[in-house]
Amino acid sequence: MELKHILEKQSAESFKKYIPTLSIDCAIFSFNENSLHVLTVKMKDQNSWGLPGGYVKKEENVDDAAVRILKDRTGTENIYLQQFYTFGNLKRSESAFEEHDDSIWNKQRFVSIGYYALAEHSHVKLVIDEYSTAVEWHSIDNLPPFMMDHRSILDKALLTLREQLNNHPIGYNLLSEKFTMPELQKLYEAILGKKLNRGNFYRKILRYDILTKLDESRKGGAHKAPDLYSFDLEKYNSALKEGLKGSW
Amino acid sequence: MELKHILEKQSAESFKKYIPTLSIDCAIFSFNENSLHVLTVKMKDQNSWGLPGGYVKKEENVDDAAVRILKDRTGTENIYLQQFYTFGNLKRSESAFEEHDDSIWNKQRFVSIGYYALAEHSHVKLVIDEYSTAVEWHSIDNLPPFMMDHRSILDKALLTLREQLNNHPIGYNLLSEKFTMPELQKLYEAILGKKLNRGNFYRKILRYDILTKLDESRKGGAHKAPDLYSFDLEKYNSALKEGLKGSW
Repeated sequence: MELKHILEKQSAESFKKYIPTLSIDCAIFSFNENSLHVLTVKMKDQNSWGLPGGYVKKEENVDDAAVRILKDRTGTENIYLQQFYTFGNLKRSESAFEEHDDSIWNKQRFVSIGYYALAEHSHVKLVIDEYSTAVEWHSIDNLPPFMMDHRSILDKALLTLREQLNNHPIGYNLLSEKFTMPELQKLYEAILGKKLNRGNFYRKILRYDILTKLDESRKGGAHKAPDLYSFDLEKYNSALKEGLKGSW
Repeated sequence: MELKHILEKQSAESFKKYIPTLSIDCAIFSFNENSLHVLTVKMKDQNSWGLPGGYVKKEENVDDAAVRILKDRTGTENIYLQQFYTFGNLKRSESAFEEHDDSIWNKQRFVSIGYYALAEHSHVKLVIDEYSTAVEWHSIDNLPPFMMDHRSILDKALLTLREQLNNHPIGYNLLSEKFTMPELQKLYEAILGKKLNRGNFYRKILRYDILTKLDESRKGGAHKAPDLYSFDLEKYNSALKEGLKGSW
């Protein structure tokens, strides 16, 4: 069905079902092929991409709404989810619905609460709903044009990841249970947006004493199989609580 | 006038003037007599205290609304102001208006965007409006009971100050232009919620090279007049951008 008809059909129900003025947008990150990715949705009739989002039901806590929206989009529930900023400029979202009637739900003023989520890439099942034509991961090194203010929302989410890297379990939630040191370094580089010296990175991360070196190595590939590590959760969490000391 | 009558009188106008569902609450901090203080308001008919707050006008950016609310309450505009979290649980605010009619503006469901502000104590002019009977600074070491979920909002604001201490100009905005080293240490202790070793603190803060030692000392008092310092803003800001290295 065309977007116009879907929006008009759903409008009355949305007014009944959701609290006004508030939406939620999610920056869902994963780490794949040594690059940080973000989940993007293409809405019918739109040339640009958006972050997956939704609204808050009248009898629902805002945080619960974020969990529900994330589940609808990714098929998974146990994902690390953090609210990071609320976006409240005038005209931030209405532009995407210019051709539609002013009275429809989607064209009202919405202030959007941003959540970021950290997912293990392979666990996410992409779900296309009736409003969208595509759901895709995009590497943050190669982003498409975004609709509304979604690019600013994404940039703020990335900035938040960077600021919280020493206090929140970001590495743990983006990597597989077992990972190599080069993978961990690439993840830190992607979040910090800069190259790190290999020797310094290894020394610092080992000095924190938050990793367990496993008795196995990554099979396959032409080179010497690299050692595998996992986080020592107890030490990791207690180190994060104090804050990992020092900048990268 | 009694609160009941004021709320009923204002209700229709509020529905017209403000966007629904959204409120703003401000945790306004200052540093006075070696203790961190927060500004609190006592509403008519309430036994407990609240953080100053307000609503967002229909043609107003959310951040601009926060500036306006802050100005109404403190008489000043140039205050460091940061959004920190949005509070969206069901029934978080309605409880304060139990005796009032369900239809009045204030008893609707509100999701509240929290801002923290850092003010220089002596610059703030306390403003009592028609809803309140008192506006007072309270030391965070000696807090009164709070209404609604305002104690959680305050606690989250304090946690944010702690997390941002190495990245945001928190010291600069809470202290007078000139301050002594013991004052700076007391401020850090208040935000971190723990005593710091004097020698270690001095060494660390001086190593950052963000302070200028002034050619004057604090007059008065029985002891040797302590040296005065100010922030070297250029060095301070560039150090914050990188993040002050190391925990306290």
